[in-house]
Amino acid sequence: MRNIKIVVEYDGTGYHGFQRQDGSNLATIQETLEQKISLLTGEDTQVTASGRTDAGVHALGQVINFHTNCKIPAENIARALNSLLPGDIVAKSAEEVPLEFHAQFSAKTKVYRYSIYNHRVPSAFYGRYALFEPLKLDISAMQEAVTFCIGEQDFSAFRAAGSAAKSSVRTIYEAKVVKEDHLINIYLKANGFLYNMVRIITGTLLYVGRGKLQAEEMKQIIEKRDRSLAGPTAPPQGLFLMHVEY
Amino acid sequence: MRNIKIVVEYDGTGYHGFQRQDGSNLATIQETLEQKISLLTGEDTQVTASGRTDAGVHALGQVINFHTNCKIPAENIARALNSLLPGDIVAKSAEEVPLEFHAQFSAKTKVYRYSIYNHRVPSAFYGRYALFEPLKLDISAMQEAVTFCIGEQDFSAFRAAGSAAKSSVRTIYEAKVVKEDHLINIYLKANGFLYNMVRIITGTLLYVGRGKLQAEEMKQIIEKRDRSLAGPTAPPQGLFLMHVEY
Repeated sequence: MRNIKIVVEYDGTGYHGFQRQDGSNLATIQETLEQKISLLTGEDTQVTASGRTDAGVHALGQVINFHTNCKIPAENIARALNSLLPGDIVAKSAEEVPLEFHAQFSAKTKVYRYSIYNHRVPSAFYGRYALFEPLKLDISAMQEAVTFCIGEQDFSAFRAAGSAAKSSVRTIYEAKVVKEDHLINIYLKANGFLYNMVRIITGTLLYVGRGKLQAEEMKQIIEKRDRSLAGPTAPPQGLFLMHVEY
Repeated sequence: MRNIKIVVEYDGTGYHGFQRQDGSNLATIQETLEQKISLLTGEDTQVTASGRTDAGVHALGQVINFHTNCKIPAENIARALNSLLPGDIVAKSAEEVPLEFHAQFSAKTKVYRYSIYNHRVPSAFYGRYALFEPLKLDISAMQEAVTFCIGEQDFSAFRAAGSAAKSSVRTIYEAKVVKEDHLINIYLKANGFLYNMVRIITGTLLYVGRGKLQAEEMKQIIEKRDRSLAGPTAPPQGLFLMHVEY
């Protein structure tokens, strides 16, 4: 038995999220990957991901693993898979890892990026990959506000209702807001994220950018652990899973 | 009667090219624009573009114009149109121009860009916006070769069969190959382009990049005016109409 780890990139626009939906006809990333890996290995395959992504969310560096008895050298698996996968899902690299490696449980940190297309006029291209915000945003206020997210904290304020996680304490190691041309990119690196956490932090930062909240209120919102004080959940299309570290 | 000029951006992936196809159910950019402008003005509208683009070709700066008796101030037309248009077509700006302005015949120069995604591994995102080329290309040879395109020349060698233009003489003012991360962008600025000219020049430059042709052979191919000596027509998805000058 071998354990294969694959770094996967996908444009989530055309999929109903990562997770296989049994008994449904909706295309998901997991189902597509499992089908193609099964074609390659000749075995029934179940893949494990570092985490699910919602419908419309993208990944530049999602990580999956699966067990197999096939003999294909790891260095050939990515190319072989790419010849079977649709163009919006790409295996970036594949390697053999110890049997105990688990894409979800072995993950140490994850980096997400949320992109806002901040321009008076919308873009015909970024509609799939960013939230459109036509109003001028106070970026330095957003940059100040996001720093209050750093550290080991209870992030109940940024936790979607119905989240199954036992604890809402997470550690954010890096948090920054970077303006790159018409894009405002929010980068968050943590040991884990609650359901919708990045999108709720983004919604709250947008309130700060619009002057509806002061930067320092970010701190109070986190401390009060009250979801209703935070901003709305930003839409999925601006969210990218960038990188998972093990 | 007023004449309105609009700069239009579009992701051509979902359309069967710019030109309206009467009696067909295929969505085209022109048809979509005409429908939405008609909704706005309450008039039957026919738009004129700087030129057609083929299915899958994109535009950052296509220019159209149309005549209207409606009273909507020009500065409101772009925003009003964007509220009606699908997300992959955007009116960037609108202005009133003299009645004799004609988006095609008044055009002085056009800039096209062709993007090649040059990386060992394909991209889940650039598949719609670039040609994927996994082999390392000799970029300096391509940069040398493209300079032979500059000037007033007969470009029969880069003219697709079935092109309706009377003369195949065009003037290329600027021609360059620029590496930007994993993208190789070919920029061409001319007083006009023959049908498929940019895509055939790209196919020929790819031959140069792969060492199948020497850079200086570009000059000979142009001089011999023989389409069969040039490279193949590169696929549409890498092509962007960037800018039209009047």
